[in-house]
Amino acid sequence: MRATYMYKAGDVRVIDVPDPVIQEPTDALVRVVNACICGSDLHPYHNLPATPGGRPMGHEFVGVVEDVGGDMSTLRKGDFVIAPFAWSDGTCEFCREGLQTSCRHGGFWASNGIGGGQAEAVRVPLADGTLVKVPVDVDSALLPSLLTLSDVYGTGYHAALKGGVRAGTTVTVIGDGAVGLLAVLSARQLGAERIILMGRHKVRTDLGVEFGATDVVAERGAEGIAKVRDLTGGDGTHVVLEAVGHMPAYEQALGVVRPGGVISRVGVPQYDDAPVGFPSLFGPNITLTGGPAPVRAYVDRLLPDVLDGKVAPGKVFDRTVDLTGVPDGYQAMHEREALKVLVRP
Amino acid sequence: MRATYMYKAGDVRVIDVPDPVIQEPTDALVRVVNACICGSDLHPYHNLPATPGGRPMGHEFVGVVEDVGGDMSTLRKGDFVIAPFAWSDGTCEFCREGLQTSCRHGGFWASNGIGGGQAEAVRVPLADGTLVKVPVDVDSALLPSLLTLSDVYGTGYHAALKGGVRAGTTVTVIGDGAVGLLAVLSARQLGAERIILMGRHKVRTDLGVEFGATDVVAERGAEGIAKVRDLTGGDGTHVVLEAVGHMPAYEQALGVVRPGGVISRVGVPQYDDAPVGFPSLFGPNITLTGGPAPVRAYVDRLLPDVLDGKVAPGKVFDRTVDLTGVPDGYQAMHEREALKVLVRP
Repeated sequence: MRATYMYKAGDVRVIDVPDPVIQEPTDALVRVVNACICGSDLHPYHNLPATPGGRPMGHEFVGVVEDVGGDMSTLRKGDFVIAPFAWSDGTCEFCREGLQTSCRHGGFWASNGIGGGQAEAVRVPLADGTLVKVPVDVDSALLPSLLTLSDVYGTGYHAALKGGVRAGTTVTVIGDGAVGLLAVLSARQLGAERIILMGRHKVRTDLGVEFGATDVVAERGAEGIAKVRDLTGGDGTHVVLEAVGHMPAYEQALGVVRPGGVISRVGVPQYDDAPVGFPSLFGPNITLTGGPAPVRAYVDRLLPDVLDGKVAPGKVFDRTVDLTGVPDGYQAMHEREALKVLVRP
Repeated sequence: MRATYMYKAGDVRVIDVPDPVIQEPTDALVRVVNACICGSDLHPYHNLPATPGGRPMGHEFVGVVEDVGGDMSTLRKGDFVIAPFAWSDGTCEFCREGLQTSCRHGGFWASNGIGGGQAEAVRVPLADGTLVKVPVDVDSALLPSLLTLSDVYGTGYHAALKGGVRAGTTVTVIGDGAVGLLAVLSARQLGAERIILMGRHKVRTDLGVEFGATDVVAERGAEGIAKVRDLTGGDGTHVVLEAVGHMPAYEQALGVVRPGGVISRVGVPQYDDAPVGFPSLFGPNITLTGGPAPVRAYVDRLLPDVLDGKVAPGKVFDRTVDLTGVPDGYQAMHEREALKVLVRP
């Protein structure tokens, strides 16, 4: 089959690889119907060292079950499924607590012998725990929105939930990528009173406004902080949802969070150390939270409104490519010509 | 009157200063009945640069109202009061939310022209908002326990509350100082199932066990982390209450917190930057919270059990001095001969 591999920063190729097969009785084999390129795929696209064997790419996909292992009980050939970006057994105490990203037996796509989602098919380990069956056809117009439940919608929701967003909360969202925009949508769903979206790309922030942002701040750094403070009587917002992952975004979060507030990070941090001492977090009693979203925990909660068409998170996709077009898709996202690229293998 | 000043690290003197007087109509004048030396007073005792004018010391005291300003409405001469370690108006939105340490008009003792508590008397600004009247006599045996509501008990409670301790939670407390021990007591009051106290001083950890610790780990660093992990099936505890403030304590907290857990800091951080990236906080979805405790918010909640004798947080005091003995009290706490020194001016 054809699958996407990255060999070094900027070097993405679609190559022939052996077809995946069932290896464990708890595996399922899924034919990928829709996959996509993630903002977090741009981190290796910017800094992956030369990797002679290449690295399989893609951690978001929906598809059709082609085959199941002997111990599988919840799925059968032909089922349409959503694959969360982490696979998990669904039975350990972390899974039962809703923290499937820390599953005792789980893992992530495109590592340890498991392929990536930007491919024709994927072997899914612990498929009973991992995959979510959805009653739709492969040609449903809902597919792009369902695909966001693989990662970006669940990740935006995780940010808002861990941030404690509820009725009356004021929120700043940092970042106008797909996760930031879906953090806006999630904050609105959780009842936020005011949602300030910090982003510079009008076409994206316009979608943010459609998703529920009440204000847009295009400025960054000290100017952006001053603008948010102006909008909030000088105090900043109760919650900041940080959907970027670079240090300037962390510093921006510190600048716009209200005393006693919460910074909830879902942008994968591209730094290790950061200010957490008296002037930054401790003195004003700021809470720092977030992490990789256990999106498996959120699918059941978020799915009904997607199926009913009450929300359309799939609007974050503004370009579609086939597998051959994946390298161009990376380039388009890198150059910010595309917000998020959908892949139809 | 006599008051305690620090002039540089290790140099504490009790000197004559002008008697404080009412300056604002919202002031009260309080004669100090009991004050004490705080673990956080040891930070300047270790590193205060030479300060020619000296710095007034002390932020915990109980006493008797001697005089009130013209706008005071809740207190009168002769009332016995607890003074939280931050003064606050009690009316701004932060105070109403229970974050009096971020009061719009408040501040801290021993700064900006307000004296410290290790003295014969203190001018209390915004006294209606700040002071809590308690129906006891000045010779009550409850005074040491009431004095802990000024800071250390409320601070331990803040740690546990912000950490989300509730029935069934497993907790590690780092630090066997007064705050750590009262974090143990608070975690027990909030229903923690298991409380592992990390501390090396047996007389202190024995008091911790009396307060509710179920396990004591005397080892530090990697050895201490391994011990806590052994005690918790390898996972660490849901909540870590960090009551020290030095970087090794932060690292210890990272080592013993369970995925999805909370590190709640009340030890004043003696560092600015710390690890918060993927391997430390982000990957396992760890929340970092805490800060200066709004102890004013907790007095009403914690007072009844103190007055009823159900808890005796005052047991953290193991030495009593008069004002003349304050310099020796600092030295004794520095040398860890005393856990916490009570001052009777």
